[in-house]
Parts: sequence; C-alpha cells; structure tokens
Amino acid sequence: MISIIGSYTTQFGELWDKALFDLVHEAIDKGVHSAHVEKEELDAVFFGNMLGGIVSNQLLPSGQIAEYLGLHIPVYKTEGACASGGLACNLAYQYLLANPKKTVLVLGAEKMTDVPTEEITRGLSSAASVEEQEVGLTFPGLYGMLAQIYLSTYGYTEEHLAHVSVKNHVHGRKNPNAQFRREITVDQVLQSPYVSHPLKVLDSSPISDGAAALVLSNDSSRIKKNRSVRILASETATDSISLRGRKSLTSLPATQEAARKAFQAAQVTPADIQVAEVHDCFSIAEMLAMEDLGFWNQGEAGKHMEAYETQLGNHGSIIVNTSGGLKACGHPVGATGIKQLHELYLQLTNQAQDRQVPHVTRGLAHNVGGSGGVAVVTIVGS
Amino acid sequence: MISIIGSYTTQFGELWDKALFDLVHEAIDKGVHSAHVEKEELDAVFFGNMLGGIVSNQLLPSGQIAEYLGLHIPVYKTEGACASGGLACNLAYQYLLANPKKTVLVLGAEKMTDVPTEEITRGLSSAASVEEQEVGLTFPGLYGMLAQIYLSTYGYTEEHLAHVSVKNHVHGRKNPNAQFRREITVDQVLQSPYVSHPLKVLDSSPISDGAAALVLSNDSSRIKKNRSVRILASETATDSISLRGRKSLTSLPATQEAARKAFQAAQVTPADIQVAEVHDCFSIAEMLAMEDLGFWNQGEAGKHMEAYETQLGNHGSIIVNTSGGLKACGHPVGATGIKQLHELYLQLTNQAQDRQVPHVTRGLAHNVGGSGGVAVVTIVGS
Repeated sequence: MISIIGSYTTQFGELWDKALFDLVHEAIDKGVHSAHVEKEELDAVFFGNMLGGIVSNQLLPSGQIAEYLGLHIPVYKTEGACASGGLACNLAYQYLLANPKKTVLVLGAEKMTDVPTEEITRGLSSAASVEEQEVGLTFPGLYGMLAQIYLSTYGYTEEHLAHVSVKNHVHGRKNPNAQFRREITVDQVLQSPYVSHPLKVLDSSPISDGAAALVLSNDSSRIKKNRSVRILASETATDSISLRGRKSLTSLPATQEAARKAFQAAQVTPADIQVAEVHDCFSIAEMLAMEDLGFWNQGEAGKHMEAYETQLGNHGSIIVNTSGGLKACGHPVGATGIKQLHELYLQLTNQAQDRQVPHVTRGLAHNVGGSGGVAVVTIVGS
Repeated sequence: MISIIGSYTTQFGELWDKALFDLVHEAIDKGVHSAHVEKEELDAVFFGNMLGGIVSNQLLPSGQIAEYLGLHIPVYKTEGACASGGLACNLAYQYLLANPKKTVLVLGAEKMTDVPTEEITRGLSSAASVEEQEVGLTFPGLYGMLAQIYLSTYGYTEEHLAHVSVKNHVHGRKNPNAQFRREITVDQVLQSPYVSHPLKVLDSSPISDGAAALVLSNDSSRIKKNRSVRILASETATDSISLRGRKSLTSLPATQEAARKAFQAAQVTPADIQVAEVHDCFSIAEMLAMEDLGFWNQGEAGKHMEAYETQLGNHGSIIVNTSGGLKACGHPVGATGIKQLHELYLQLTNQAQDRQVPHVTRGLAHNVGGSGGVAVVTIVGS
C-alpha cells in the first residue's frame, strides 16, 4: 500500500519577496512536519519544476535540495511543463513500488514573477512544438483554437466557458492559500479582454509563484489511519506535442489514455469518484477534462457547467476543483500537480474546512503538460 | 534481471546542421534498431537533458518524443545537470524494478552549439549555487578551486593533471564517434591557455552536441546472451550544491556515497571491475573519481596517472574512459551518462573494436552533476 501521509502548500500568488528555493524550503519543512517524520527519515526526494532554468538560471535542484536537507539521499527532478508536479508524484509512486519500506518527499514549485510577462509567455511556449512557436503560437493561442473547435462543434457559446471560472472562483474564495479569493460573475468574465479568441483574461489561469509538498510512504508503521490517503493508481500518457499531430481536437487523447489506465489499475469507475482536481489552465481545459476523464459524455460539458453541478453545495455526483483550480488558486506550474493531491488529501482526511465535500471516499487528480502532450491521472482513496 | 539489450550514440561534436530533436530522433531510431525491438514494443521512455529550455526554448520533451514515436506511452524527462543521462538510466532501472516484463528506451541528448559560448557558460553555471553564481564562479572556476586544493594537498603538479587528457585523447583517437580524434602531448596540455588556474583548455571537456540511447529490459524473452549486459546496480547520491557546504574538497562525497551503495548492491568490489567510464569534465575530476570510487587510495591518483596505468594496452587492473571520456569524446551533457553505458555495453559484448579491453566481465559508469551536487554510479556485468 502506497499512501500520502502528509501534505502542504504555500500561499499561491505574486510572491515578490520569495525566491524559488525560499518556496521549496518552506514546502520541505512544512510538508515533512505534516507527515510527522524527520528530514533524516526521508529515503528520496522527487521534484517537479518547469522554468527554474529559464527564469532563475537554477538547474540541478538535486544539489540545492540536498544542501538544504543536509543529506546525501537520491533527489530526482522531472520536467513535463505544467504536468511536472504530477509526473514527480508518478515517479515517486514507481519508486515506492520498487523499494519496500520507504518514505519519500514529493515537491513541486515554480517562481514565475521574477521576469516580465513576455518572457514567461515565451518560456511557457517552450512546451509547444518548434513549428507552433515559429508561427507565433503561445499557450492561450493553442487553447483558444481548442476552445473555438469545441464551441463550434457542439453549439456552445462563450458563456458556457465563463461558468467554469465563476465556479472555480466560488471555491477559491474559500481557500486561504488561493491567489484569488473573490467571486466573479459571468458578466465580468464575458467583459474581460480577449487573450486569444474566444478565451478572455478571466478564462485563463494566472502567472503564479508557489510550492507544494506531499510525503508518500509504503512503510506500514508510518501510515496512520486518520491522516493517510491511499494512492490507488498513478498513470501517465503522452500525445503529439503539436495540435496538428492529434487524433482529436475536441478532446485530449493523453488524458483519455491516462484515465483509462488509472481507472483500470484502481479498479474503480468515474461514478466512484466524489471529488476531483482537474487541469483548468483555461476554462475550456476543464470542460475537455471532465469529458476525457469519463465523468461526462463527449459534448455534454457545456450543459453540465451551465447547471453548476460540480460546485460545492450543489450536490452533483462530483465536486470539481475545490481548491479553486488553476484559475482561482493560481498556477505555479511545477507546484500545481502536487497542490491538486494536497487538496484531495485534505478532502479525504476531512480537513478541507469551508470547502469540505461531505462523504468523500475517493478522489481524482488530473494534471496536463502543454496543450496535451502529457497527462497524469492519480486516483486516491481513504 | 534488468539488462541493456541495445545501445547507440550519435557522432559527438559541433554538429551545426543538427537540432536537438534531430539528434534525439537519430538516437531513437538507431537505439531501438540495435536492440531488435520495434518502437511499438516500448513501454516507456526516460530522457535526460539539461539545457533544452535555456538553449532551444524546448521543454516538455515528453510530447516531442511521443510525437516522433507516434505512441501514447509514458515519457519521463529528468534533469540533474551533467548527470541527467545517468539519472535517466537510474529512473528507468527503478521503473523496471517496479514493473515486470517491460522494455524501455533511455535517451540522453544535448544541443550546446546553437548559442554563443558565454551563454552556454552561463547556462552551465545554473548548476552552481546562487551565491557561487553571484560571485562570478563558472564551472571551470569551481573545478579550478578543487584542482588547486588537490594539487597542493598531495604535492602534485599541473603535469599530473595533463596525463589524464593525454590518455583520454589516445582513446578518443580510436573512437569514430569522438569529437576529438587526435592525440595530444603533455607539452601541448601545459602550453594551452589557462581557463581557470591550474586548469587549462586541454584539461577541459569541450562544448558538444550529441545524443545517445540505451534499451533496457527485464523481459527474459528479449534478453539475448551475446548481446545483452546486465545492470548489477544503479545508485545515486547527492551533496551540497555549494562547495562551501561540503565535508571534503579533495573528494566528491556524492561519488563516494553512490559508489558505496552501488558496490554493496552489486555485491562486487572495485577489484572486480576491468573497465570504467568516469566523469572527466576536467582532468582533476577523473583523478578525484578514481579515488572516490575506491579504485585508488586518497591522494594516489597523481602517481597512477603518471604511470598511464588506465590506458588501453597498458595492462593495469582497470582501463578507464576507452570512449575518450568527456575530454576527447565530447560532453553533450545530457547524453554523457548514456554514452558511458553505451561504451560499457560495447566493451562487455566485445564490440569495442580498436579500443576493446580483453577479458572484460564487469564495468562501472560514473556520472556527476555540477561540481558534485549529484553523482550516479552504475555497475554492469556480462
């Protein structure tokens, strides 16, 4: 049995007074403390980060983290754009499958506000293909095209997109670590400036700083009933980095494949999941995710979003992005996949306070890199 | 049993007509072919790369590689500076420990010549600590300090350093994939310009482009006796990224720790190894490595180097860096750790031609990130 035995997330936001490793150090200290283990008891560390090289000229986090820990244990860094955190967790899961009686720390962090927005936009576009970059496509551009195709295929409007952001801001207001803690209206979304038609500023997750940590263990002596959450499956799948290489543009095949494998490995179905954190880098992404993960049929996300079925208190079969999602909680890219699992840990251990979903026994986290070149799906159970 | 069942390396050098993913694609095609498997039979890919974000604005290699393969399998990227390749292999090894009957591709690549040398030097310094960067230390500077301390502690001279490069150029001349295929003399080394006292140009590995691939499998039906090499151990250890945080400056504690664990796991001793590829980013690094790996006692590397004991044909107990090492074969950083294992694969399957060491049954690869913030030691056997 591989369990999450502790977790932590820093404040997400524009943290002008924090450097990348200030955030990492906070996540290490508080993450380890939350799991009631000492640093010296860790067997390995897995770290997800995308832009440390481009933004901060800081690579080799292995040595940075070892220096802070004062240990010589293995430290692995992985990068899969905005899925770096989910992938770090997936690698940690593989490690624990291979090595009995181990306890590992999984970290994700990103420092994005130290450089001008143009530079971040260019850095993020490193997760697009060379030809997409050459024609000037950025991430809003890629997701804008996906949104255009989805809306026209199924006859939805920009208002359908807006409901996603409105719902996630309702949740973000209840999360003390969220970057945006205020509600927004459909009109505000619709009146916000276009970033890439049909996506507007308020359809888009922000530029954020933040870090998050999980402690995973397969050591039964460390897994305490009331404060552990079991990982039932962790699966990743890939797809063409370029949109032009995809089988579908009204779905993300990488998500579909990772979900198929994860539900099979966990031996559960979408109907068994009560709470999910899905990758809403743009509003359209949450709609695609809900269909690709099998919660809704293809083409039905618009009407489900309009009914606010996945909002806290609305008693749908599944509540989504109680953290506020990438949209309202913020999206420090390497941290996001870890923060998603932190939120599920809180939900499944009944520590989510104002945003607690009642009677939760199973949760799902969904983390995407680029415009769908990689996806990670993790299923947890109490 | 986890075995290397095929391997490949591209030409290393200043490959002006090749982009990062041109090199990766060549390594994928030829690597898979060498193992007699089809791409469709791969279960996962592990990719080591350091500077793709900084030099080429290309992150998310998961999607890039999936697009080329036309598959949805897991693709993991890891970064640990110049140890990125060794770490990719270590993660693949963990994956195979966890998952029976799998065959995976391990790739390493770097494209370094697309930007000016100053920019590469700054990019490489991303593997130094913030304070080391702030005082202007680059990699030659860090290793220059280590060399200074080593020479003065044990009473050696710059001539002792020179022997390392002279020996590795003898080997590089015999390797068709090496960047430098000519011999050099001690005088030439001593007369080359200082890069960072006491290290000179000819003590230093070059800026290189290149890629390498391994195919690993734990599927017994794929492991053929005459063209497979067993991985007996793969271990990694870390240390303070900053020199000021180290326990020792006349050794790399990360290497010592990784070696200790690897010899223990493989149940062999240094005396059982006949051929090794060690991390000679600078001449001093090979001297430290030979001591830290336990082949020689502390402080004795100078005299062993002077006797050229580790040169092909000289019948020492161990022959080192038959590929030419980082110095003569070249050092495309993400590829180096994979190329080292490719060389051992050739040696242990008697395919090393002009540079074949006779009667080889066990080999060791040693890959370092930064100035010693991380090290990976892999032991293989026939």
